[in-house]
Amino acid sequence: MALVEKRMREILRCPPPLQAIAEYILSLGGKRIRPLLVLLCSGIYPGSQAARIDIAAAAELIHTASLLHDDVVDAASLRRGRPSVNRRWGNSTSVLAGDFLFARAFSLLCTYPQALDAMAEAVAAMSEGELLQLHSHFNPDITPETYVRSIIGKTASLLAACCQCGGLVSAMPAAKIPALRDFGLHLGIAYQIIDDISDYALGHDESGKPRGNDLKHGIITLPLMHLLANPRSRGRVLELLRQKRQLAPEMLAGELRETGALAKSARAASRYIQQALGKLAVFPDTQQVRALKNLAAWLQEKCDRFSQDSGPPQHPGQPAEHPGAQPRLR
Amino acid sequence: MALVEKRMREILRCPPPLQAIAEYILSLGGKRIRPLLVLLCSGIYPGSQAARIDIAAAAELIHTASLLHDDVVDAASLRRGRPSVNRRWGNSTSVLAGDFLFARAFSLLCTYPQALDAMAEAVAAMSEGELLQLHSHFNPDITPETYVRSIIGKTASLLAACCQCGGLVSAMPAAKIPALRDFGLHLGIAYQIIDDISDYALGHDESGKPRGNDLKHGIITLPLMHLLANPRSRGRVLELLRQKRQLAPEMLAGELRETGALAKSARAASRYIQQALGKLAVFPDTQQVRALKNLAAWLQEKCDRFSQDSGPPQHPGQPAEHPGAQPRLR
Repeated sequence: MALVEKRMREILRCPPPLQAIAEYILSLGGKRIRPLLVLLCSGIYPGSQAARIDIAAAAELIHTASLLHDDVVDAASLRRGRPSVNRRWGNSTSVLAGDFLFARAFSLLCTYPQALDAMAEAVAAMSEGELLQLHSHFNPDITPETYVRSIIGKTASLLAACCQCGGLVSAMPAAKIPALRDFGLHLGIAYQIIDDISDYALGHDESGKPRGNDLKHGIITLPLMHLLANPRSRGRVLELLRQKRQLAPEMLAGELRETGALAKSARAASRYIQQALGKLAVFPDTQQVRALKNLAAWLQEKCDRFSQDSGPPQHPGQPAEHPGAQPRLR
Repeated sequence: MALVEKRMREILRCPPPLQAIAEYILSLGGKRIRPLLVLLCSGIYPGSQAARIDIAAAAELIHTASLLHDDVVDAASLRRGRPSVNRRWGNSTSVLAGDFLFARAFSLLCTYPQALDAMAEAVAAMSEGELLQLHSHFNPDITPETYVRSIIGKTASLLAACCQCGGLVSAMPAAKIPALRDFGLHLGIAYQIIDDISDYALGHDESGKPRGNDLKHGIITLPLMHLLANPRSRGRVLELLRQKRQLAPEMLAGELRETGALAKSARAASRYIQQALGKLAVFPDTQQVRALKNLAAWLQEKCDRFSQDSGPPQHPGQPAEHPGAQPRLR
């Protein structure tokens, strides 16, 4: 991972005024889950170390570029607990710096056409997913299928591509790569559902982002879909959405408790984690595969924490409990 | 060119809500200079028709993506005479739709790694150029070198890449490709200088963009640099810039006339056009090379129109008359 950081710094070497912005972006850090996935997935079978590091660095640059653009889209002011680039230098800088990072990432991937293809597809899916979400704001009729399609796009597609590319640049048998990709896809869906729950779960702050951001912007995620699916809370949520006023999770504290919406959402995430783990069965029990399992276990722990708020017994036929059948990427 | 349009429509096929936005973007049209350059440059020597069309389509998609982002950066409300995407659907949609177009363009280029490399470099240069300009707003001390560096980035780098890629996908001898790239580079610099003059030259409207946009945002381009270099107008321009108030070209009408700043800028553009034409000397006199010369002649005509406003005799040592020596791309 230290080599990936070093590679990112090399790639982002550029003349001022961009250099200061690039350094600030890298200094914000992050969980680096995407490069970690690339490194682990490319390490199950032998392969070139330089290629692994290049692709891991490109994946994190693509992710960071998308964050720079998302911060503009969400009008965010904090990123990883510090002022976001758009807050510090303005929206225009955030847009252009994002483009610069995308371009440098793609330059880096030129040597690996298959990986580039997968990553370019992921970037297209990410913008599609974000647009889908953007155009569903304040829409109470959003279906579980649309929600899953949107989070596959905005999050899971890149995690899937990271795993796929890891396989592609190593000596992994081609027949096994889809399983690895599916692992990333399911893990990514769970990851985003957990992120969406965190936006409601006051007191579980780890992200460095302010809480209640989704609700404030009328983004309807799984917890709110549970409230909409429940006759006891649906009326109040509809009324709030209709007013399009600035919403905060606190306004729905009673409903969230009463319906167990967070716990139900956590159980949905947990099912995706189990599906992800199932995909690893075809791989040898290497150190890397064990680390991938640990990553899934780390997410499962978060789910378990949210699930402790068990809520009332589950009602049959609540659609949001099963957000879409098998996820599929276009 | 009809095949390029068809290819772009194929590439941008996508699910709603993105489809409506993509169709609107394509319907806005444009001069399609970048795909034209690709087609002409790839046609001097034999080559695959499908590859030429793919690269031409990718070039226009990259250009369009950058316009979608520029409209956010410039807070533009008109593009090609019609409401811009950011005005019609908001800044967020414009940012994300731009990302989608970039991603699809790079997907398309995956089959042509050398072209992809050149295009990715151009996108990095474009965002660098725009950032450089953005961070020079209202700065009267901007040097001719910085100005040329900025317009090479924002405009000429992509035109250079279009010409280079045209050579790369054809049977053009490798030794000739740098000349073709340099043709695009010099043509692109001239093209942007002419665009910058147009922003001041009321009554020459062809662009579908409102006039005075640069001045309004404090973007200091060649005509204003001439006013700053002239003792008769420097004081007034400095005072206006210091106030950072909303400026309009009309406020400087007298100074522009008196100093001949537009004519001088046009002569600078004209010199770049002549340099571009010089680069074509190494190529056979094919139909495509004649068309490239016609393209340069079309720009020269625009210069000539602006040059008729000859202004006072040129003062020796005015730096903006020679904006940078030989342009160099990083």
